[in-house]
Amino acid sequence: MGAKLPPIRQMAEQLGVTRLTAQTAYDELRAQGWIETVIGKGTFVARTARPEALIDSVGHSSTPDSVLDDQPKINQIAIVRSFAYAEPDPELFPAGEFWGELHRLRAESAALLRYSWPQGDPALRTALADLLRERGVEAMPDNILVTSGVTQGISLITQALTRPGDVVVVERPTHLGLINSLRTYHVRAVDVPLDEHGPRLDELERIIVQYRPRFFHTVPNFHHPTGTLMSPERRRALLALARRYSLILVEDDSSGQLAYDGDPAPALKSLDEAEQVIYISSMSKVMMPGLRVGYVVAPEPLHRQLVSLRRAADFCGPPFVQRAVANFIQSGALRRHLRRVIPIYRERRDRLLRDLRWHMPPGVTWTHPRGGFACWVTLPPGIDATVVSREVLRRGFAFTPGDAFLVAPGSNDHLRICFVSQPERVISEAVVVLSRVIEAQTGEGDYWMPPHPDVPQE
Amino acid sequence: MGAKLPPIRQMAEQLGVTRLTAQTAYDELRAQGWIETVIGKGTFVARTARPEALIDSVGHSSTPDSVLDDQPKINQIAIVRSFAYAEPDPELFPAGEFWGELHRLRAESAALLRYSWPQGDPALRTALADLLRERGVEAMPDNILVTSGVTQGISLITQALTRPGDVVVVERPTHLGLINSLRTYHVRAVDVPLDEHGPRLDELERIIVQYRPRFFHTVPNFHHPTGTLMSPERRRALLALARRYSLILVEDDSSGQLAYDGDPAPALKSLDEAEQVIYISSMSKVMMPGLRVGYVVAPEPLHRQLVSLRRAADFCGPPFVQRAVANFIQSGALRRHLRRVIPIYRERRDRLLRDLRWHMPPGVTWTHPRGGFACWVTLPPGIDATVVSREVLRRGFAFTPGDAFLVAPGSNDHLRICFVSQPERVISEAVVVLSRVIEAQTGEGDYWMPPHPDVPQE
Repeated sequence: MGAKLPPIRQMAEQLGVTRLTAQTAYDELRAQGWIETVIGKGTFVARTARPEALIDSVGHSSTPDSVLDDQPKINQIAIVRSFAYAEPDPELFPAGEFWGELHRLRAESAALLRYSWPQGDPALRTALADLLRERGVEAMPDNILVTSGVTQGISLITQALTRPGDVVVVERPTHLGLINSLRTYHVRAVDVPLDEHGPRLDELERIIVQYRPRFFHTVPNFHHPTGTLMSPERRRALLALARRYSLILVEDDSSGQLAYDGDPAPALKSLDEAEQVIYISSMSKVMMPGLRVGYVVAPEPLHRQLVSLRRAADFCGPPFVQRAVANFIQSGALRRHLRRVIPIYRERRDRLLRDLRWHMPPGVTWTHPRGGFACWVTLPPGIDATVVSREVLRRGFAFTPGDAFLVAPGSNDHLRICFVSQPERVISEAVVVLSRVIEAQTGEGDYWMPPHPDVPQE
Repeated sequence: MGAKLPPIRQMAEQLGVTRLTAQTAYDELRAQGWIETVIGKGTFVARTARPEALIDSVGHSSTPDSVLDDQPKINQIAIVRSFAYAEPDPELFPAGEFWGELHRLRAESAALLRYSWPQGDPALRTALADLLRERGVEAMPDNILVTSGVTQGISLITQALTRPGDVVVVERPTHLGLINSLRTYHVRAVDVPLDEHGPRLDELERIIVQYRPRFFHTVPNFHHPTGTLMSPERRRALLALARRYSLILVEDDSSGQLAYDGDPAPALKSLDEAEQVIYISSMSKVMMPGLRVGYVVAPEPLHRQLVSLRRAADFCGPPFVQRAVANFIQSGALRRHLRRVIPIYRERRDRLLRDLRWHMPPGVTWTHPRGGFACWVTLPPGIDATVVSREVLRRGFAFTPGDAFLVAPGSNDHLRICFVSQPERVISEAVVVLSRVIEAQTGEGDYWMPPHPDVPQE
């Protein structure tokens, strides 16, 4: 161990900060492995920086809760390149333009720092109505509810439509936050498998008949995490099935604009003649997740009920943020941003698929994402994705084991690769490391692979 | 009627905007009374500007839902001076300083626009721990959950501690948003009356024995909307009662620092030795409500449960907003702001009380707020507060009828006056108008009072 640090009380006095602040700083440094405390002796500078303290604290479990909690931790480990988070590349964030929009609101700032409408800023709802039209959805600003991300949309819809013990159908695999929310609200999720055209309707019908589900959550445009695009035939058949059984569909279209093979397909909602589709989306994937701006278009009277539930949940979102997002959309900055990033994401997708083909050992398969953020990898039988992802993490790359995306975790032979958030060079490095780790696990690797030089080993 | 406007389609083409945008503009102008549509004839400029269209759309009901919905509408009527909203005076908002903090975060903006921790930005939790120490509450940053206003705190606590049909005790009168949230979650509110020292404990004990409530929501420091300060003896007796019956107390301390007669009293939580108090607060009253930043300190394991519920409710708040609030607090700007506004609020309180004494007809009584935002007025028997507030609104001033703050609305003989949001001159004008309207209602007024010259009459 290195130099001894003064006790917290003394450090606080020396720096002129409160003891609490000093304590917090010590706690954070300790959590990141920079300092160590020996009971009865004091606190010392760690002899080597020990990011493995943080690395060791993640990846122990693949429940939705633990995976969601791991993600900000992984982001804090500077040496780890993360493919574990379904967020756009922060290097490509249009943060400067957004900050510019905030700055331009300075003169109106007081008016935009008051309580606002539970339904959301009218200017933002007007801008979203224009976005929706591009997705084929006709909605007036009054038909739109602004939410705090799609997470709040799902939460409000679940509160409105379900009681504890009810059944909801989800896709297999599905959105991590969805599984977590349903579990929190004591709703039982039943999953329907996908084929290359979308959810299998024979299975869905069986589930409808058996469980009488309250709704079916689907991602027709670039299903997460497989990247599947639902075919036009499947869409029509799904709507017909939903109509026959009066099943409500909840369409998550967050990544609908992020198409890599041709133009984006319209939303499922655009075909919805019988008002059976609740449309949810957000600015998290097309702009930045930290904005916490999502939106819902629901038929009446559900729309009114969702507005009431939002009023009870948190009254309203921050109006100055909503207005800045509105102006960002209306100024054309969103369109420019998407024109810039979609080709980059496409190249990353292409690089990932090429490298997977090149390096992966036999028995590993993966999806061909047509859009969106993720690729879904299936490992050979007997290989545990949690072990693989922990081994890969020691070598400096983070992936998420797939069990977190399944209602009924089982063989744990899947990995999610979020490919949009890293540059092509890193994608190639990660695929090489991943493939060697898998080879070592299958016993097919015939060479020793050194660990990442910056990650100290146990 | 005045000039005819072109049809929406044509207007949209002329202006080069989408039809939806034109439609929205027409809708908004129509709602505000600037244009009128005659079916089959078209849309016309209204001959006179008709703010009464908007005025007529508010104040029809005093349910929490409708009062909450009226408030942003009232804010839009430029000629109305509002005492109806429990928010600080926007003219006194520290908006410039906050914008400065946002601006200084520009270099870190990308990092602060990613997904963040459900529990809240660590820097904000550190700043809040310092604030809490000033309120006599010892909490580590890890014990704090950041919420989207106190509304989200109440919502998460209600979800954690109650099931539909359960009983919760509230004060009479109480917080409007609280009644609304409890109703939304199908929880039954039972109310306990207050005397000048706080909630009446004999009544509270009777309710505990009869209903076994899940928690008691109380505002010891400047009860809203009466402005009562709970006495030290009542606090100790309340904690002893809560301990005897294992009753959880939810303390809302949002206005705790806004003391007008001497120094602020510590939070009830500061006396909480048996971990029976859940502490909730927010930056809405001491800073600005549009920030949507509140916080909760709850004992374990409830704290962990509330973090999970927030993860399911909306995942996290906007990290850049939370960081800017943290820096605002740590830089001393919050302390400077409070030093500036508290004397102004005190003078407004004093002016209100002096003018009420001077002008109010006999039979009208009111509370003496020791801090906070509101004064609670009781009208003479037989006078309807909804009628009074609508008459006053026609003369350019908005108050909220008191039934919205009661669990069991009844005689509707109360008004809430939020006095901090208007300058002293307007307070005096409003009290004169209010007293004359009441006199006219009691039949004691012996003169005709002209309506506000800018408000056209029916």
